[in-house]
Amino acid sequence: MNIADYMQRLGQQARRAAQTLVQATTQDKNKALLAMADALDQGRAALLAANQEDLRVGAARGLDAALMDRLELTSGRIDAMIEGLRQVAALPDPVGEITEMNYRPSGIQVGKMRVPLGVVGMIYESRPNVTVEAASLCLKSGNAVILRGGSEAIHSNRAIAACIEQGLAQAGLVVEAVQLVEVTDRAAVGELIQMQDFVDVLVPRGGKGLIERITQDARIPVIKHLDGICHVYLDQDADEQKALAIALNAKTHRYGTCNTMETLLIHADQAPQLLPRLAALYAEKQVELRGCERSRSLVPSMQAAIEADWSTEYLAPILAIKLVDSMDKAIEHINHYGSHHTDAIVTENWTRARQFLARVDSSSVMINASTRFADGFEYGLGAEIGISTDKIHARGPVGLLGLTSQKYVVLGDGHIRQ
Amino acid sequence: MNIADYMQRLGQQARRAAQTLVQATTQDKNKALLAMADALDQGRAALLAANQEDLRVGAARGLDAALMDRLELTSGRIDAMIEGLRQVAALPDPVGEITEMNYRPSGIQVGKMRVPLGVVGMIYESRPNVTVEAASLCLKSGNAVILRGGSEAIHSNRAIAACIEQGLAQAGLVVEAVQLVEVTDRAAVGELIQMQDFVDVLVPRGGKGLIERITQDARIPVIKHLDGICHVYLDQDADEQKALAIALNAKTHRYGTCNTMETLLIHADQAPQLLPRLAALYAEKQVELRGCERSRSLVPSMQAAIEADWSTEYLAPILAIKLVDSMDKAIEHINHYGSHHTDAIVTENWTRARQFLARVDSSSVMINASTRFADGFEYGLGAEIGISTDKIHARGPVGLLGLTSQKYVVLGDGHIRQ
Repeated sequence: MNIADYMQRLGQQARRAAQTLVQATTQDKNKALLAMADALDQGRAALLAANQEDLRVGAARGLDAALMDRLELTSGRIDAMIEGLRQVAALPDPVGEITEMNYRPSGIQVGKMRVPLGVVGMIYESRPNVTVEAASLCLKSGNAVILRGGSEAIHSNRAIAACIEQGLAQAGLVVEAVQLVEVTDRAAVGELIQMQDFVDVLVPRGGKGLIERITQDARIPVIKHLDGICHVYLDQDADEQKALAIALNAKTHRYGTCNTMETLLIHADQAPQLLPRLAALYAEKQVELRGCERSRSLVPSMQAAIEADWSTEYLAPILAIKLVDSMDKAIEHINHYGSHHTDAIVTENWTRARQFLARVDSSSVMINASTRFADGFEYGLGAEIGISTDKIHARGPVGLLGLTSQKYVVLGDGHIRQ
Repeated sequence: MNIADYMQRLGQQARRAAQTLVQATTQDKNKALLAMADALDQGRAALLAANQEDLRVGAARGLDAALMDRLELTSGRIDAMIEGLRQVAALPDPVGEITEMNYRPSGIQVGKMRVPLGVVGMIYESRPNVTVEAASLCLKSGNAVILRGGSEAIHSNRAIAACIEQGLAQAGLVVEAVQLVEVTDRAAVGELIQMQDFVDVLVPRGGKGLIERITQDARIPVIKHLDGICHVYLDQDADEQKALAIALNAKTHRYGTCNTMETLLIHADQAPQLLPRLAALYAEKQVELRGCERSRSLVPSMQAAIEADWSTEYLAPILAIKLVDSMDKAIEHINHYGSHHTDAIVTENWTRARQFLARVDSSSVMINASTRFADGFEYGLGAEIGISTDKIHARGPVGLLGLTSQKYVVLGDGHIRQ
């Protein structure tokens, strides 16, 4: 099989599917989502068997434990996929919403209509549940999608795609609305990210390496999430209880997530009260602390932080700590070393809270709340296809709206330009 | 001078300026805009002299008449620039607007804050007034801008940039908020479109060749406007008077604009009534008609259209005409041959009007109105930095909002994730 031809064919089919999807009713889309859920439920045995095959091949290839864990489907994980489909069915349909219709002096009425982007190219790694998440969010937002999952999950993804196809067919929707790339050759990704005529946006999900590679080579806009180097700044007017609770939660609630705090900044006047107590709390959780010189004078047991620590996403029980002399210095540090993901201040000071909100250049900026809240579900988006650290198009958690665009609509009664 | 070093320095300065601009008050930004207007007014003699120098060099280089016209500054054109600055000063400031603040079940309050994109790279051709438009829109929206105008306008642009700098200084704003690329070497553009660390978005304005080149080579998102192949479809239920008025206005109001109709589609049942009358109206305006075979059987004097006519942006008194048997065929033609810019239907039929609105995949879709209305001023954006034919980020006329992004803001009282 010629991979370029194969991918071009998927692209053409996706483009045609997108043209019919824009007319699909909310009812039909929801019917398809619920039918997919039923198909997954009834297809459990086949799904688990296909997944066993992936696990067998994976074990033979010597995949590491973390990867094997992400790859594994269990009955509980299938339940979660089914529940996810039902939740997406219950979300409001963003497509066709008309807003801001105003009359202009010329007599025309102008507003905006929310429309699908068209065709989404989804590139991800080993977790098979992403297949269901991406398919459901793209379908609900009226987009066709081409799914390119990791080669190690190919059997699982094929079994899931069969359920998705069944759901689409039962609702009378075009089955090419969701297409799985069946070839595992890497060249397929190279084709996908260059098909400007057939793909409107790429959504890569996975490690930083994957996303950098795709961004580098893509000839199509990318909704991308690079790293999450998140900060909490404890201001001189921080409430002590809030400061301790948030600093602990932001680091230790989960270590491997992108909204976990990686660097803690403390105002030098507050550090003598807070830092020793915090160090004790982190010690209980076995978090390794790496401090600046001044912070080490307060807690000598800390390791010395090196320059690289300020720009490292540990994704692990490690925390960099720095004392600063002012909020200005904290904001400077965040905007310089951070990844524009999520940053928080703990303060009771009104003016500094407002300043922090305006000046920190991140997709989520928080006052007196844990960075761990940066999440599509916590924000009420219903579901999330990724978190964007870009400024263009979508920023922060991306839900259904991030998969749509708005076109202008103009209504007249024979109006012409004078 | 090393061009790479020079551009890097502009980039660093722009990034730093952007960090201070995000804090600039509406009052200071407006003060700067009005001071720029005054500086232009008081600097007329110097502006006209600098422009004369560009015209002299241009004439010696044998620039064509159209280019010389775009290059020329007159007192009337300076008035228009001054008026434009005052209008932008009068527009509402989009920066800092907080919307959709809602409490979530966890107790946090989540909403969005509108923020500048950061640094805009503006690349344009010979019209010096773009220097003022781009500077004013970027400043009002809180962005720093690097301006790269055409080399043929360099003396005019330097004179204008001096007035802009004077306005910024008078308002106490950082003068690097607006920087003109002083080197005319093409390599400067090559650098500008690759400076990912310093430039957040590129806005090219000019011919299709320029924009394609930039899009091809840029490593930064581009808000781009390629061609405007706009259609009007006269439905079988079109009101005759509206059909004649709109078809005439959309083609003949101005020929060289991107929202001018280039192809007229007519339902075959309506064509016998409408087409001969339209042909007579177009003949009065000396518009050359290029028809499909069936339309030529109704108006034999028309030239035969060839395949290339359906995808040509004439920007001239030439019109392609095609008969179609249904609205479905019209939509198919538009989505296939059009440039997703602006397309209109003329009909009294409710259901088809709604269908056309939903299914035509263009940045502006119109019912019973002339395509010539697709314009930032007509839409009430106040001003326009360009028209985007993309779907990502901004679509259609791009005003101040298109130069901003939204970040999430989260307010709490010590909330932590459970």
